[in-house]
Amino acid sequence: MKPESFLPAARDKLLFTPGPLTTSLSVKQAMLHDAGSWHFEFNAVVRQVREQLLAVAGLGSQTGHEVILLQGSGTFGVEAVFATCVPAQGKVAVLANGAYGEGMVQILRLARIEHVALRTPEHAPNDPAALDRLLVEERAVTHVAAVHCETTTGILNPITALGEVVRRHERSFIVDAMSTFGAVPIDFAAAGIDFLISSANKCLEGVPGFCFVFARRDVLLACEGNARSLSLDLAGQLKGFEKNGQFRFTPPTHAILAFAQALKEFEQEGGVEARAARYRRNHTVLIEGMKALGFEVFLDPGVQSYIITSFHHPKDSGFTFEEFYQRLSDKGFIIYPGKISHANLFRIGTIGRIFETDVRALLAAVSETMKEMRLVT
Amino acid sequence: MKPESFLPAARDKLLFTPGPLTTSLSVKQAMLHDAGSWHFEFNAVVRQVREQLLAVAGLGSQTGHEVILLQGSGTFGVEAVFATCVPAQGKVAVLANGAYGEGMVQILRLARIEHVALRTPEHAPNDPAALDRLLVEERAVTHVAAVHCETTTGILNPITALGEVVRRHERSFIVDAMSTFGAVPIDFAAAGIDFLISSANKCLEGVPGFCFVFARRDVLLACEGNARSLSLDLAGQLKGFEKNGQFRFTPPTHAILAFAQALKEFEQEGGVEARAARYRRNHTVLIEGMKALGFEVFLDPGVQSYIITSFHHPKDSGFTFEEFYQRLSDKGFIIYPGKISHANLFRIGTIGRIFETDVRALLAAVSETMKEMRLVT
Repeated sequence: MKPESFLPAARDKLLFTPGPLTTSLSVKQAMLHDAGSWHFEFNAVVRQVREQLLAVAGLGSQTGHEVILLQGSGTFGVEAVFATCVPAQGKVAVLANGAYGEGMVQILRLARIEHVALRTPEHAPNDPAALDRLLVEERAVTHVAAVHCETTTGILNPITALGEVVRRHERSFIVDAMSTFGAVPIDFAAAGIDFLISSANKCLEGVPGFCFVFARRDVLLACEGNARSLSLDLAGQLKGFEKNGQFRFTPPTHAILAFAQALKEFEQEGGVEARAARYRRNHTVLIEGMKALGFEVFLDPGVQSYIITSFHHPKDSGFTFEEFYQRLSDKGFIIYPGKISHANLFRIGTIGRIFETDVRALLAAVSETMKEMRLVT
Repeated sequence: MKPESFLPAARDKLLFTPGPLTTSLSVKQAMLHDAGSWHFEFNAVVRQVREQLLAVAGLGSQTGHEVILLQGSGTFGVEAVFATCVPAQGKVAVLANGAYGEGMVQILRLARIEHVALRTPEHAPNDPAALDRLLVEERAVTHVAAVHCETTTGILNPITALGEVVRRHERSFIVDAMSTFGAVPIDFAAAGIDFLISSANKCLEGVPGFCFVFARRDVLLACEGNARSLSLDLAGQLKGFEKNGQFRFTPPTHAILAFAQALKEFEQEGGVEARAARYRRNHTVLIEGMKALGFEVFLDPGVQSYIITSFHHPKDSGFTFEEFYQRLSDKGFIIYPGKISHANLFRIGTIGRIFETDVRALLAAVSETMKEMRLVT
């Protein structure tokens, strides 16, 4: 397909992925405007977005929290937390059971920050008891980092139980909630979260271009001097917002206008609870439909999120993921490849501006594709 | 003004700033689509954008160059070059005559990279003779970094003369061409440029969300192992593109679709030459008009770019920038504040999707505003 013909005549293919996701037309239409990044009208949008994000998190001036928007993808936000908040003598324990936990390890290695990885297999959640033992042994650990939903498989990690361990040992707790914030309830106090990172193009259904980090204002400002990076300095970014309401460096103005609209639609839908219900329904319909077609889910139901689900390839030797993917794409549905090495999987996301009826349409397309490929599951 | 009323009934205010800029409606409309960041159709757009950027620069496989797109603002790109390309024992000489040169110094300080600053006053261009002496004395310097157009004032620095000195001393030359690439001709070979950084939302008239870096492929890949950052690792980013055509981390898909359209319109207009001519005309009309209204230009004409121009505040004691700015904003024109400490200036940009007729409309609004404020220049 030639890039010139990228724009389809009818409508965009539906994205059953971990993001960027399908968004509403009204969110995209909010980008039909050029805003001055220094202008007071745009600053007011940024201020409102920050206030609304705090409200979604159940945080605010009463809890002493702030949210900092940062240009780039979610990984930029995770790196920014480490680069800003871990002191020179600090050490980070990373709970890893997939690519995003391993990504944290890689960030720390490149930044020359001391770290230790506490791994579980990709199908097993992070282990609070093992973390407890580690924190007894490893006195040098100052921060613990975990991934809420590891989209490598779709597994949901027990951040509240982990956070209780971290707090008992008086360390700081960093949570990558990229693909859960806004659709999986998160109790900051109960989980003792010090830093939480998420992204515009996930469950809040904005477009990609920036991420955001929740932190206590005093803790963040006390990090000044740790910074290893100018671009990724969250304390500097917060000071910029507080000085004049502006980003220190050019913000993705259009993505932020889209996000303001996305937050409005999030509230109209009914907030975290309503979005969780819609995604859970998407997931339930998907699982039931795929099982009826003979597909097997990779994870145990007890640890499976309703964000994204990994399915085993059919055992049929005629199956190739490439053909399956292409045929679904031709029908208007984009799914996601697998990411782990020891099993042949593909993934289907159930987040974004998609509804039960879209999931049923996808299931019909999967069924049709299986007939075309003469697959037996 | 409430954020809800951000979207104007008529049309957006025109941005006479250094960016983000006014863009065409068709560029913004290209964002009305959700693309899959892993999907082959989107990968084809990324590949085409990279090929077109190389063509704009007069580079390509015949010169061994590559261009790497990176999420974030231009500053992220500048930091990425330092974080990727300067070895542990390297040292950078920064030519500074404004905020963006000083920003480089700050990046290097935070990244704990050895550096030395060679400063000239804000109204004076970087000095090739002084650089020559510095490179004789400072044997440890491995890289020299300069800002082509320092938008702090609008001054154009002599990158070709600087590059000749750098090459004679066999060091690497890094150029921040954020606000010039695409509208000021740049001869990579003549200026001996090793790394050049620019941004989507400048003279190529895309929307903000990513920057791009030109480099020789072999030089960049040889930098592997230097990286201090995962997010900002340009060698890793290039390897990602070459492995599967994808970004390593979520790209700003909408901003990239907009940029593909912006590049199409850039070619339709006639490339660098035509865009330079339009911006130069914008600048000439602005200067003549502002002088006729009694305003004084800060820089000497010989070093003044046609990108952005600094004007002295009127001597009239009744002038405040805040009121002047607000009244122009009310009329639909957004200008820019000054940025240097020892003179009271404001700035007017002449880039983006604006034409002579828009500049004349701005001049009429400035004239009207002066009457309203009863200003004498």
